[in-house]
Amino acid sequence: MAEPKSWQARIGEATDALAQSFVESISYDRRIYRQDIAGSIAHATMLEKAGLLSAVERDAIIEGLKDIGRDIEAGTFVFDESLEDIHMVVEKALTDRIGEPGRKLHTARSRNDQVALDLSLWIRDAALEMGKKLHVLCRAHVSMAERSGDIVMPSYTHLQRAQPIAAGAECLAWCTMFWRDADRCASAGEFAGVNDIPLGSGAIAGSSLPIDSSITAQLLGYSQPPLSSIEQTASRDQGLEFLFSLAMASMHLSRWAEQWIIYSTTEFSFIKTADRYTTGSSMMPQKRNPDMLELIRGRCATVYGDLVSLLTLCKGLPIGYNRDLQEDKRLIFRAFDTVSACVIMSAAIVNATNFVRENIEPTLERGFLDATSLAEYLVTKGTPFRTAHHVVGSLVARCEREGKTALAQLQLPDFAAAANASGADPSVIGQDVYDALGSRNVVKRYRSPGAGGGEPFKQRLAEWKARLGC
Amino acid sequence: MAEPKSWQARIGEATDALAQSFVESISYDRRIYRQDIAGSIAHATMLEKAGLLSAVERDAIIEGLKDIGRDIEAGTFVFDESLEDIHMVVEKALTDRIGEPGRKLHTARSRNDQVALDLSLWIRDAALEMGKKLHVLCRAHVSMAERSGDIVMPSYTHLQRAQPIAAGAECLAWCTMFWRDADRCASAGEFAGVNDIPLGSGAIAGSSLPIDSSITAQLLGYSQPPLSSIEQTASRDQGLEFLFSLAMASMHLSRWAEQWIIYSTTEFSFIKTADRYTTGSSMMPQKRNPDMLELIRGRCATVYGDLVSLLTLCKGLPIGYNRDLQEDKRLIFRAFDTVSACVIMSAAIVNATNFVRENIEPTLERGFLDATSLAEYLVTKGTPFRTAHHVVGSLVARCEREGKTALAQLQLPDFAAAANASGADPSVIGQDVYDALGSRNVVKRYRSPGAGGGEPFKQRLAEWKARLGC
Amino acid sequence: MAEPKSWQARIGEATDALAQSFVESISYDRRIYRQDIAGSIAHATMLEKAGLLSAVERDAIIEGLKDIGRDIEAGTFVFDESLEDIHMVVEKALTDRIGEPGRKLHTARSRNDQVALDLSLWIRDAALEMGKKLHVLCRAHVSMAERSGDIVMPSYTHLQRAQPIAAGAECLAWCTMFWRDADRCASAGEFAGVNDIPLGSGAIAGSSLPIDSSITAQLLGYSQPPLSSIEQTASRDQGLEFLFSLAMASMHLSRWAEQWIIYSTTEFSFIKTADRYTTGSSMMPQKRNPDMLELIRGRCATVYGDLVSLLTLCKGLPIGYNRDLQEDKRLIFRAFDTVSACVIMSAAIVNATNFVRENIEPTLERGFLDATSLAEYLVTKGTPFRTAHHVVGSLVARCEREGKTALAQLQLPDFAAAANASGADPSVIGQDVYDALGSRNVVKRYRSPGAGGGEPFKQRLAEWKARLGC
Amino acid sequence: MAEPKSWQARIGEATDALAQSFVESISYDRRIYRQDIAGSIAHATMLEKAGLLSAVERDAIIEGLKDIGRDIEAGTFVFDESLEDIHMVVEKALTDRIGEPGRKLHTARSRNDQVALDLSLWIRDAALEMGKKLHVLCRAHVSMAERSGDIVMPSYTHLQRAQPIAAGAECLAWCTMFWRDADRCASAGEFAGVNDIPLGSGAIAGSSLPIDSSITAQLLGYSQPPLSSIEQTASRDQGLEFLFSLAMASMHLSRWAEQWIIYSTTEFSFIKTADRYTTGSSMMPQKRNPDMLELIRGRCATVYGDLVSLLTLCKGLPIGYNRDLQEDKRLIFRAFDTVSACVIMSAAIVNATNFVRENIEPTLERGFLDATSLAEYLVTKGTPFRTAHHVVGSLVARCEREGKTALAQLQLPDFAAAANASGADPSVIGQDVYDALGSRNVVKRYRSPGAGGGEPFKQRLAEWKARLGC
Repeated sequence: MAEPKSWQARIGEATDALAQSFVESISYDRRIYRQDIAGSIAHATMLEKAGLLSAVERDAIIEGLKDIGRDIEAGTFVFDESLEDIHMVVEKALTDRIGEPGRKLHTARSRNDQVALDLSLWIRDAALEMGKKLHVLCRAHVSMAERSGDIVMPSYTHLQRAQPIAAGAECLAWCTMFWRDADRCASAGEFAGVNDIPLGSGAIAGSSLPIDSSITAQLLGYSQPPLSSIEQTASRDQGLEFLFSLAMASMHLSRWAEQWIIYSTTEFSFIKTADRYTTGSSMMPQKRNPDMLELIRGRCATVYGDLVSLLTLCKGLPIGYNRDLQEDKRLIFRAFDTVSACVIMSAAIVNATNFVRENIEPTLERGFLDATSLAEYLVTKGTPFRTAHHVVGSLVARCEREGKTALAQLQLPDFAAAANASGADPSVIGQDVYDALGSRNVVKRYRSPGAGGGEPFKQRLAEWKARLGC
Repeated sequence: MAEPKSWQARIGEATDALAQSFVESISYDRRIYRQDIAGSIAHATMLEKAGLLSAVERDAIIEGLKDIGRDIEAGTFVFDESLEDIHMVVEKALTDRIGEPGRKLHTARSRNDQVALDLSLWIRDAALEMGKKLHVLCRAHVSMAERSGDIVMPSYTHLQRAQPIAAGAECLAWCTMFWRDADRCASAGEFAGVNDIPLGSGAIAGSSLPIDSSITAQLLGYSQPPLSSIEQTASRDQGLEFLFSLAMASMHLSRWAEQWIIYSTTEFSFIKTADRYTTGSSMMPQKRNPDMLELIRGRCATVYGDLVSLLTLCKGLPIGYNRDLQEDKRLIFRAFDTVSACVIMSAAIVNATNFVRENIEPTLERGFLDATSLAEYLVTKGTPFRTAHHVVGSLVARCEREGKTALAQLQLPDFAAAANASGADPSVIGQDVYDALGSRNVVKRYRSPGAGGGEPFKQRLAEWKARLGC
Repeated sequence: MAEPKSWQARIGEATDALAQSFVESISYDRRIYRQDIAGSIAHATMLEKAGLLSAVERDAIIEGLKDIGRDIEAGTFVFDESLEDIHMVVEKALTDRIGEPGRKLHTARSRNDQVALDLSLWIRDAALEMGKKLHVLCRAHVSMAERSGDIVMPSYTHLQRAQPIAAGAECLAWCTMFWRDADRCASAGEFAGVNDIPLGSGAIAGSSLPIDSSITAQLLGYSQPPLSSIEQTASRDQGLEFLFSLAMASMHLSRWAEQWIIYSTTEFSFIKTADRYTTGSSMMPQKRNPDMLELIRGRCATVYGDLVSLLTLCKGLPIGYNRDLQEDKRLIFRAFDTVSACVIMSAAIVNATNFVRENIEPTLERGFLDATSLAEYLVTKGTPFRTAHHVVGSLVARCEREGKTALAQLQLPDFAAAANASGADPSVIGQDVYDALGSRNVVKRYRSPGAGGGEPFKQRLAEWKARLGC
Repeated sequence: MAEPKSWQARIGEATDALAQSFVESISYDRRIYRQDIAGSIAHATMLEKAGLLSAVERDAIIEGLKDIGRDIEAGTFVFDESLEDIHMVVEKALTDRIGEPGRKLHTARSRNDQVALDLSLWIRDAALEMGKKLHVLCRAHVSMAERSGDIVMPSYTHLQRAQPIAAGAECLAWCTMFWRDADRCASAGEFAGVNDIPLGSGAIAGSSLPIDSSITAQLLGYSQPPLSSIEQTASRDQGLEFLFSLAMASMHLSRWAEQWIIYSTTEFSFIKTADRYTTGSSMMPQKRNPDMLELIRGRCATVYGDLVSLLTLCKGLPIGYNRDLQEDKRLIFRAFDTVSACVIMSAAIVNATNFVRENIEPTLERGFLDATSLAEYLVTKGTPFRTAHHVVGSLVARCEREGKTALAQLQLPDFAAAANASGADPSVIGQDVYDALGSRNVVKRYRSPGAGGGEPFKQRLAEWKARLGC
């Protein structure tokens, strides 16, 4: 005969089927079984030290729990779906296996602090895993930066050609973003710096039993007992922080995907991705659609939705545990799975993509990308920046009027005339001005740390390789 | 041997497994098989009229499609998961079954307009179904209004006691909200009033074949061919409208759940829900937690997230079909399922809940709920409202000072004194002032249409019963 | 001496300054003065018919209100900021001007139904105005469609070149989107179809006075009295519907801006916008940045935020009026202003922009845009579509192998060979196949209603001109 | 004559008025003048060390900037609204005042890195300020905890009475939440841990001039030069992190407001707030509405909207600076102002509110709050927890059947009988069971760290006082 639900001794009427399916979470919270078991093992260890379990009982519990864990890993464990959640499933299985001691495991514990602990442990693991995946993506970008060699391409602001850069420098920009995201994930494991353990909070008010949550804290890698049993069972701050860090990664993934979709157009043709990551059209057989990139961009939008969902859910709640919180896991798992798949897919795509030198370089001089370089040349000759800026503006205007497509097509007297007209000293402009013109020249001249080419780029590339071990 | 993917003739490299699982939608878009088949039947019918199919071919196609539909309904159809989506699965199965004519079905059609049509048809069906479910919920509230009989309760503004109402009037307020939601769902089926059919738009630019989409429009219940083939394949307006109407329903469900969670507290105890819709606690066996209401409130938050997801997804897209749009169905299905379950659950709860007269009525006179009624009494005697308001304010203050808990505990001279002090005519206040005092009296006096008691309430109750057929 | 706040007779302690600035809304709700006055005039008219005002009192009130309105319009009205909101400011000014009758205006009314009415009236006006602005934008796109003449350009799916279209057809796609948005705005004025007036709901429970809100409903253009006084004062459905319709317009504006930012790149150069709508860079003087388009795209994001804000705000509320609702106006006004400015700016930009034929046409044949047309040609010759699709795929592959950039560079035997290889009848392909090739040819051949070129495009253009009167 | 806009030398056509108002940010970005000046001073200092300014020029610039800062502080500075933004206003004023050297300030700098720095500096300051304000709020809660003395109240889970707690323990729970929020704000100043300075990134690609941003980094409190000039000018990670930390604080503020609105109802009446933070009703003069709490709850919703706005805005952007980013400040300032006002208002309200012992204690024993305590008593006597749980469940059921309102009303044999029936040892239950019953007894017995009463509560209270210096 099925054991009655723990609280059913009092409630006479049977819960109807609709209600049962409405409240169950075992269909998705089974995913935290490993954390649930780890938490219970630590709890049992502590209970023994507190004198609430004998050593024999503790050992029986721990062995029983490990056994259940092994069976789940092996796929041989049968989940009793009539029990609502992973906590009851594990506890019931334990009691079935080891008898009476199993009935002591829940001493000084409630599902309210148990689930808060399990989720916290899961997030710590997931944040670690996500950090590793993001580093894989970082490595892919670094590797692309390296194999891009000396390809020079335009950089864009306002999606307008701005300054020339080493193609690899853009890869490092993406790498930087995802590195920050990994960092953000890592710190989402920290309960806003305080890192107190949820377990030991009971249902809301703690316990009158002589438990010592500094023991469980230490066993499970937290720094201290709950600051407030009420707060710990009422809050999902850590879950929200993790979701936010996933949303940030999604934002960066989406920007990158968008950028590469643009680079994949016929008009840009800056990159080529291996065919296995593009698809065709049922009606237009010639197309190579960047579907993977589009799906990444699209799916990343749904992570925002998941963040909004949990923020909204939490906002309306009075203090203490409310059942609404059960939805947290569904949202966090979903966002994690989405971002995981997108990150891995992205790394695969980056590894299968190259800049196409022969498409980029022929048009490299379009857009007067060396205008800033020329202004800086004038600055080095003592011209105030605003004046230099004005001089260059008039030279570009002159090129446009005269149908010249590059500043380097101007003659020395042209430069002098412009300087003169703007009140700058024309005599400072010498033959070396041409060393500051042309994209290839410009890129070599970058000197500021973190810049888009030249030595600063080489230095950053070396740093990233060292940092990421690639 | 498996037929190659339609566009694989050109792309040499095999799509790798990761990419395949990343792009597939068959795991969830199989849900629109009925709409896909209906759309294809209409399309084939039109193609024959346009001379692009023979009558024999058309009949073979239609029979084949019906056959597939029957097999899917019967659960005997095997979905070929290596094909990406429901469209290819159905077309491939058709060609397997009927041969050559199957290869003509996709004439003058693209998956871009096909999926836009299928989703539109699905939303129309889903909106209809949601409307019916919301009406079930309306009926539950009307029925509760009726069985609440003459129970009088406080109404609340700012969650403070405001005026007395017939308990059933609050039920009708909820009914009104859900009725509006049903209305909103219905109009989400309309493509912003224009109701042009997506099918016939091709991939983006329409077709050079002599198709006539006014035929498919008529067959499938649309009013006209596409206004713009480009817009129809690029947009998901209808999906967003439906999601918004679901979000609105979620908002109302959440407000209702919140209200009833408050009414279920020990402190209010205004309602009692059958035990089968409450649950207990693992640590506090005496509790009757309104978990269903909390889960409704919590899940409704996730519908907001789904709306935000699709809005965000669409915002970043250039014109024309983009693969990001594939995610639309996942979001819309999910929101629909969430709201469906919550609406049905809510109706069940309402049907299993009653106001508890013995908890409500003993404290009914707390809070001077008849203050407004007294002011209105004075108005009927010619006192300007602002003066009447002032008189009543001073009388309430007097009661509080003197420890009187109700205005009816005051004597006629008390009323006269207050009127006098505020510059009102004291002589107008007679014995009939007591008819305006006390919650039961007040509720009977309501006269304005739609008011919270008295004849206006009875009239609205009768109207709702007639409108909803209950 | 300042009149005490209406409810201050009872509350002894003075509201402190912090609190006062926290609760005031007069700094932004003065914007609804016109609606407040119109509502009060209708209310006074009704009160007289109900016997609660004399004709003389009514006339004094109406004249006084009109007077106040004129002073506000003229800028001579001094807003008393110590009163909290526009309702109190107007009523106080009225009483100051006309004395006693002013104190009767608020009879059978509460700020709860008054503000609900005012906002509803404002939204109706704003929706109308927004509809007109969106039609201005529609006209700009139609006008651009017309002046684009016979320019042919590629259309894009997945941002990849898909099929050739008349450039103007893309303008009509945008026009269609904004037309739908205008339609959606219009229907946001309707209270989900029922269109009952909020006024007459009182604070929450209606009134015991013999008011007749069918009179005010008729005077103000509503179809009936409140369905439920409780619901009408508790809800902001109409505000949310309007915000949603603004969010949809924002989404379309953003997509258009994004598209044109891409078209403005050096690489595309499909359009040219007058210099007055581009800006330069402080460091790169040659740039013409599409700042206006970027600002439109960026600002449209904030309308999503405003929608999320109001949805979130409403979700957590118990029934009845709650003060949280005061924030509704701030959000709705802000979103309206943002979208208004963006729509007007967009129309100005569209009117100042042209497609650049000399940039578009030279590359028109890149991307085998006529592939679908060729497949459809084969279909007209009896080839099943899937077979035709396969034939074309192999031909495109052949072109790519052989360095041919257009299908028209193939010879008749090439077509025949491909047909043969795919099991199609090669004999059907004649010299007329070349009429189906080349972008200009293809565009002329479109026949399906709403298609991207040819007669269908001309027909739609004529329809839009008639519909929009341009 | 007005100096032409810096980039206007080239663009011939005048920017029209509409466009000008559309692009300006000076109306709100003047708020970052202090950061702009500080950044420019550091920049000038560095330029001199790099040999790009003379010491005399540097000093002139620094003095000029300080002068401008003083004038702005003094309110005597006239903002030239025809210049677009704070950066141009300050630079123009500088050149007006000091002449030529002012034209050198923008050397090796772009508005793109300048604005990124200014915003970063502003956020660091704002985060610090917000942290302080949140600590003020923490102190208010701690102070309320202290003055609540030995009041015992029910705690709630699912808004159902759960366990008795010291009233002050709930105050400490709120304190804990806001403390975490302050912590989160603090870490939002950190650029995801790396803390590299944006300045030195130029427009996108850095500079060819020999600048050393490790100097500006050190002067302004950053740890290193930009990791990537491209990333630093393209990203708003820090702004999003700050907005998220504000959204989290909003969530907690909203939960607290909601809780206190419930506690302020007639039915609960657990707290009393000074009249200056409540308001009345225009129609129901007896009401004391918690308007401030409602406005806090409502306004906090809009911070979510601001977060969604910026997340959405960033998601759609290609790499590099895009003008959309100009909107970031409007959103961040708005959210900061909203949360600032709400935090200060909240602290004022907490300081003006007390628990009402005479309303809480009379009903303290409702809801069998000592059930868990009884179960834990049995556990201390050796009964397994699950068995103890079952025993208590049956005892509560018995009380409800027999109309007993508290477990303490049962006799010793009743306890024994229940133990017996559940298979527990009845002999362990002695007279001391009554020490575990009754809310006051229960609260004294809490022993687990962070628990809701007894010694653990006293310890946490002492810790918070020490930590917050109160």
